[in-house]
Amino acid sequence: MVYLTRKESFNAAHKLYNEMWSREKNEEVFGVCSNENWHGHNYDLYVTIKGSPNPDTGFVYDVKKLGLLVRENVVDHLDHKNLNIDVPFLTGQFPSTENVAIAIWKILNPLLPDTAKLHCIKLVETSKIYVEYFGE
Amino acid sequence: MVYLTRKESFNAAHKLYNEMWSREKNEEVFGVCSNENWHGHNYDLYVTIKGSPNPDTGFVYDVKKLGLLVRENVVDHLDHKNLNIDVPFLTGQFPSTENVAIAIWKILNPLLPDTAKLHCIKLVETSKIYVEYFGE
Amino acid sequence: MVYLTRKESFNAAHKLYNEMWSREKNEEVFGVCSNENWHGHNYDLYVTIKGSPNPDTGFVYDVKKLGLLVRENVVDHLDHKNLNIDVPFLTGQFPSTENVAIAIWKILNPLLPDTAKLHCIKLVETSKIYVEYFGE
Amino acid sequence: MVYLTRKESFNAAHKLYNEMWSREKNEEVFGVCSNENWHGHNYDLYVTIKGSPNPDTGFVYDVKKLGLLVRENVVDHLDHKNLNIDVPFLTGQFPSTENVAIAIWKILNPLLPDTAKLHCIKLVETSKIYVEYFGE
Amino acid sequence: MVYLTRKESFNAAHKLYNEMWSREKNEEVFGVCSNENWHGHNYDLYVTIKGSPNPDTGFVYDVKKLGLLVRENVVDHLDHKNLNIDVPFLTGQFPSTENVAIAIWKILNPLLPDTAKLHCIKLVETSKIYVEYFGE
Amino acid sequence: MVYLTRKESFNAAHKLYNEMWSREKNEEVFGVCSNENWHGHNYDLYVTIKGSPNPDTGFVYDVKKLGLLVRENVVDHLDHKNLNIDVPFLTGQFPSTENVAIAIWKILNPLLPDTAKLHCIKLVETSKIYVEYFGE
Repeated sequence: MVYLTRKESFNAAHKLYNEMWSREKNEEVFGVCSNENWHGHNYDLYVTIKGSPNPDTGFVYDVKKLGLLVRENVVDHLDHKNLNIDVPFLTGQFPSTENVAIAIWKILNPLLPDTAKLHCIKLVETSKIYVEYFGE
Repeated sequence: MVYLTRKESFNAAHKLYNEMWSREKNEEVFGVCSNENWHGHNYDLYVTIKGSPNPDTGFVYDVKKLGLLVRENVVDHLDHKNLNIDVPFLTGQFPSTENVAIAIWKILNPLLPDTAKLHCIKLVETSKIYVEYFGE
Repeated sequence: MVYLTRKESFNAAHKLYNEMWSREKNEEVFGVCSNENWHGHNYDLYVTIKGSPNPDTGFVYDVKKLGLLVRENVVDHLDHKNLNIDVPFLTGQFPSTENVAIAIWKILNPLLPDTAKLHCIKLVETSKIYVEYFGE
Repeated sequence: MVYLTRKESFNAAHKLYNEMWSREKNEEVFGVCSNENWHGHNYDLYVTIKGSPNPDTGFVYDVKKLGLLVRENVVDHLDHKNLNIDVPFLTGQFPSTENVAIAIWKILNPLLPDTAKLHCIKLVETSKIYVEYFGE
Repeated sequence: MVYLTRKESFNAAHKLYNEMWSREKNEEVFGVCSNENWHGHNYDLYVTIKGSPNPDTGFVYDVKKLGLLVRENVVDHLDHKNLNIDVPFLTGQFPSTENVAIAIWKILNPLLPDTAKLHCIKLVETSKIYVEYFGE
Repeated sequence: MVYLTRKESFNAAHKLYNEMWSREKNEEVFGVCSNENWHGHNYDLYVTIKGSPNPDTGFVYDVKKLGLLVRENVVDHLDHKNLNIDVPFLTGQFPSTENVAIAIWKILNPLLPDTAKLHCIKLVETSKIYVEYFGE
C-alpha cells in the first residue's frame, strides 16, 4: 500500500455567519470572520489516495488524471467563488474549513476506484490553520 | 545603508470589476476575477525600509515597532475585509494588487523617519503572483 | 472526526549537554550541539486536535481560541527563552526536540475538552528535522 | 513512542517508459514523462523513524547519524544520477515515485535498530506530488 | 512604475559537460553535474515586468496573459525536456542556470510591449541556488 | 552581468543587550530579546555575486565553490555558536541582524575575484524579518 498525494489550489471568499443568530452573537462567536462584506483565502487542497503500484506503470493512479479529477469535480467549482453562495455542493452548509473538507471528501470518494481509494482530504486555509478528514 | 524587511499578512475578499463597463466586458477582461459574489486571498505584505544601524542598538529601526506600525496603519484595515467596500484608504480605487501596493506605500511613507525611509512595498497575492512598488 | 491543526512559532536557545558526563563525552555524543555557550532555533509548533464539527459553528474548536490556548500555556513560556534554564515545565528535562514535544503534550492535553481531544504535537527544529508525539 | 523525521534531498533524471510497450502506447500512458531524452526533478526525501527517547540523550536516535545513514545508503546513490540507468538498487524497477519510495524503504529498514524502527518514507517529486510508504 | 512578477515552473534534465574537454577535465570542473547519463531539476521561473497600472484595469499587464505568454514561449519548450538536446532556443548553449536565464530573457523581451517592459528573469535551480538576469 | 545566489544556513544563540545600559533600559528597548539567558534562531544566509558567465563553463562562479567559501569563512564560525561570545569577527559588535550581515560582507568581499564581485548579503532571522546589505 502506497499513499499518493496531489496538491491543488483555489482562491475563494467566504464569511462565517450563522443566520439563526443575531449580528451581535455572530460577532461574539466568529469575530472578524463574520464581516458581512466577506473576506477570503488562498486555499491549498491535498488529496491523498492509497493503493498498490500497477506493475506496468509503477503508478497507484495516474497523478495527472488525479489532478484533472480534482480540478474538474472540486476546484473548478470553488476557485474564484464565494463559498457561501456560489457552490452547489456546499448549499446549506456552513463554510468552515472543516465542513468544506468533508464536502470535498463526499464529492471525490465515489469517483475513485477500489484500487486507489481516497485516504485523506487536507485543506489548508492559512499558513497557520489546516484540517484533515479521513472519511469517518 | 542596510535594508530591513518586515512581513505581515492579511486575508481579504475582492473582485475586479469596472463599474463603467458592462458585465460582458468585465468578464472578457477580468475573467473569473470579476465574479460578482467576490473571491479572496491570503495576502503577504513585505515592507522594506533602509537606513544606517544605530550604534547603540544595532537597529535600522526597531523591527517590532515596524510590525506594529504596519499592523495598526495598514493590516488592521485590510484583514478580514472586502477591499472594494470596507477600506477607507482604497475608496475609489480599483483593488488590483498593483493599486493596493501603491495605496499601502502612501499610508506608510509619511509615517517613517528620515533615518529609516520606506524603500519597497511587496505584496504577494498568490504563490505565483506578486508586485513591488518603490515609490516612483 | 475531523483533525484541526494550528501552527505557532517560538525562538529559543538551548544546548544538549548531559551534566552527568564529562565535557569530552558530551562533545563525542552531541558534537556542536554541546557548545557550552548555547545555540538556538526558530521552532515551529503544530498542535493537532480531533473532534466532530459543531453544527452551529462548523468548528471542531474555535481555532483562534486554540491559538490563544497554545500561546498562553506553551509558547509564551518558550519564546525568547533558554530551554535549559528558563522554562518551569522543562525543569530537570533534557531539552531535546523529542522531550520538548512530550512536555508540550503534557501541558496541553488536560486543557482540551473531550469534544476536541489532543491528537498530535509536531515540533520542527530546523527545515530538516522534526518530531511528532501522539501521547503514547 | 516519538516519531523523528529527517529530510534529505537529491536531484536526478528519469523517464517513465515501459520497454514492453510501443512508443505510441508509452506516449499515450505517460505523456511528456515518456520523453526519450529524459527529464528530472529535485526530490525531497523525508525519513521517519519511531522509538522512545533515550534517557541519557533525549534522542530516539542521533538525528545527525540518521542523516549520515540516509545519505550514505540512499542519497549518494541517487543524487545527480539517472534513476533508470545508474542506481543498482533500482535495476529492473520502473522509477515511478511510488517504486523509488518502496526501494528506499527496503534499503533503510534493515539498517535501523529495534529501538528506532523505520516508520515512513515520504518522497516529494514536485511541489504538487508526493508519495508515502509505511512498509506494507 | 510598479513591478509585477509571475512564477511558472518546469522539470527538466541536463548535464554540465564541455565537449571540447576530456572526461577527466569535465569531472574535475563539473563534478557530479557532468554525469553522462544526466540529472535533473524542478526549476522555478520568476518573470518580472515593470510599468504603470492602466487606469481602467489597475493592471500593469494582465497577469494571466503574462502566464500564458511565458508558458507558450518558454515553459512548454523546457518542461519535461532535456536542456542539452531538446530545446531549439538553447542549441549550442551550455545549459548552466546562468545561460538558460539569459536565453529566456532573449525570448521574452521582444514579446512584451513598451508599457510592460521585461525587468528580470529569476531562475531557481534548487532551494539553495538561483540566478537573476536584468538584460545587461 | 548575471547575479548568482547561494543559500546557506546556521543555528545560533544571541541576545540584544547593551552593556552600557541598565537592565531596565535594556528591557525597555529590546524587550524579550534582552533575556540574559539568551534565545536563538535558525538563520538563512543568501550570498549574491555578480559577473559574466565564463564561456567554457557557463558559470559566473562555481556555485559549489561559492558554497564552500561561505561555509568555511562564515557559516562554520557562526553555526551552533553564541553570536555575542563565540565569533571572533563579531567581537565588540552588537549582534543585531543588521550588524551580522555587515560583518559577513566584510569577511566575504575580499575573498571574491573581480569577475564575481559580491553584490548582496541577505540574512533572514525569522520568517517575518530579514535584512539586506549591498556594501555601502
